[in-house]
Amino acid sequence: MDPENAMTGRNRFLAAINCQPFDRTPVWLMRQAGRSLPEYRALKRKHSFLQMVRTPELAVEVTLQPIHRFHYDAAILFSDILVIPEAMGQPYAFRNPGGISMEFPLRSQSDIDRLNEGEIPEKLAYVAETLKLLRRELADKSALIGFSGSPWTLATYMAEGGSSANFHHLKQLFHRDKRAFESLMIKISDAVRAYLEMQVDCGVDALQIFDSWGGNLAGQDYEDGSLKWIRRSIESVAERVPVILFAKGCGQHLQRLAQSGARTLSLDWTLNIGESACAIPSHLSVQGNLDPLVLNLTPEITKRETERILTAMKDRPGHIFNLGHGLDKHSKLENIEMLLHTIRNFR
Amino acid sequence: MDPENAMTGRNRFLAAINCQPFDRTPVWLMRQAGRSLPEYRALKRKHSFLQMVRTPELAVEVTLQPIHRFHYDAAILFSDILVIPEAMGQPYAFRNPGGISMEFPLRSQSDIDRLNEGEIPEKLAYVAETLKLLRRELADKSALIGFSGSPWTLATYMAEGGSSANFHHLKQLFHRDKRAFESLMIKISDAVRAYLEMQVDCGVDALQIFDSWGGNLAGQDYEDGSLKWIRRSIESVAERVPVILFAKGCGQHLQRLAQSGARTLSLDWTLNIGESACAIPSHLSVQGNLDPLVLNLTPEITKRETERILTAMKDRPGHIFNLGHGLDKHSKLENIEMLLHTIRNFR
Repeated sequence: MDPENAMTGRNRFLAAINCQPFDRTPVWLMRQAGRSLPEYRALKRKHSFLQMVRTPELAVEVTLQPIHRFHYDAAILFSDILVIPEAMGQPYAFRNPGGISMEFPLRSQSDIDRLNEGEIPEKLAYVAETLKLLRRELADKSALIGFSGSPWTLATYMAEGGSSANFHHLKQLFHRDKRAFESLMIKISDAVRAYLEMQVDCGVDALQIFDSWGGNLAGQDYEDGSLKWIRRSIESVAERVPVILFAKGCGQHLQRLAQSGARTLSLDWTLNIGESACAIPSHLSVQGNLDPLVLNLTPEITKRETERILTAMKDRPGHIFNLGHGLDKHSKLENIEMLLHTIRNFR
Repeated sequence: MDPENAMTGRNRFLAAINCQPFDRTPVWLMRQAGRSLPEYRALKRKHSFLQMVRTPELAVEVTLQPIHRFHYDAAILFSDILVIPEAMGQPYAFRNPGGISMEFPLRSQSDIDRLNEGEIPEKLAYVAETLKLLRRELADKSALIGFSGSPWTLATYMAEGGSSANFHHLKQLFHRDKRAFESLMIKISDAVRAYLEMQVDCGVDALQIFDSWGGNLAGQDYEDGSLKWIRRSIESVAERVPVILFAKGCGQHLQRLAQSGARTLSLDWTLNIGESACAIPSHLSVQGNLDPLVLNLTPEITKRETERILTAMKDRPGHIFNLGHGLDKHSKLENIEMLLHTIRNFR
């Protein structure tokens, strides 16, 4: 056996996340399961997105589709960040065309008081079931990553009543009624914490926090609006497994993110990964940051841009290759193949 | 005469932009002319946006409306960034609802070859006329600011054929055919340069470059995709008047922006202005960065958030108060009044 291929995907991923030596850079892609795969689109013709999220056998199948096809070093649970608001008593649906619509928006303290952050493991037992099946199925081949939206990101949907451009209502709550805002964030953070603990109990190797909308906060408010609640959510769980923080549009806050308790910072595509990695303390690992748009172009461009990132990170311990945002639905399979080929043959 | 009120708005603005002492922080707001003013909405019922842009008397009236009402220290030309593509031979219209539509997209070298970057002052003589009228009208009361979109930002509309989410075609050109990309950017940059020179000839006190979409470039590509062309556009004109660079979503590139040739960096709302100002060389002035959403809330919140920025910048020479993005159409007049009152009475 070639010693360079002696590591399993799971070992490789765990070595990188802990800044330990590995045979080659591990890779997985945000939104690797989903619309870019023909086998996902086939399944989607038979089941709705939410059906797939809520049915363990289907969620397992969707999670494993990209692993079977591409042998990524890590699998990420197929689910949705809005299972948390739903479990707290605020159901949601998808707008046509595009976007999220919550059954009602949170506008007052009494709306917030009605939320129930308790019994998350019971209410999200289908996620636990999915994770246990995945853990068994993946064994040592690929790492298993669980996830949650950040409290601020979840709160945007909850306060606005769905997708939003400027987060008017949540920012209003933040500025106008700090007590109500904090009571909401405590509830969400505690629900997220319980959800993450449950995922670790089910055997995930790592957790990723998606702070998709914290980057829209005023710079002076990022700590109080978002980061503080991420810390509260991950504090206990970060002692059990490594936590990856993907804070989109937060390159201006790198120093703060490095103090979040996360083991890994996942960089969006707008950062220069070589420069950023120098600014991040060397005991933290770095994930990212290829522009997903590249995978909509050609194999040649994919190869060149992939090598550029690998070269920039060659001497930095703890690099996990990933995109700077989720895989686009127009990405091409031949480009994903080229990306993987390039990473697996890079010396 | 109270010596503290001895400076005119124009003097105050010019002192701040040059990091010289001033009596109080000068202020103007991006998109101060426009939908937030009832007198603008009244005029808009009689004339289309493009009519107002193209008719000097109307453009002068719209530019001066916020000066008459609020006595800002600077007036910014009422116009549109897309007058440049139009002058180069690519007309545009507004989509209903929302967004821009160019008459055709640029997709090939031959499309690019058809663009004509010459005779900008002749084709945009109506802008020159507007500026001369404004200069006479404003005299020494308020500074007059001209502007242009950055070459990359203009190129996004031109290559995509209008507004776009991910700039697929322009990024494709950038990665796939660097020669065609560069020929396009040279043409646009030269047109922008001629346009800026014309504005200085007409008496503007400063120029602002709007790099609205450069922040979407991969971090590794910001220099080659956007900043290099901004430099080319402003190099000669920056010797004549101060240039303000507003690069939205580019907080990760502050050090690069400081080397752009601009005298002032205008910070978007996602940056912490106190921290950023420390990272910007002290001979450069700093503009920004209040979250425009604040002006949709209450006078109390407006006062508090305005004071927070003033306090953070108290000991930094060269601060021009502004928003971190354009004024929102839902901003309230009472909040603008409170913002100005707070700035004018801050000690």
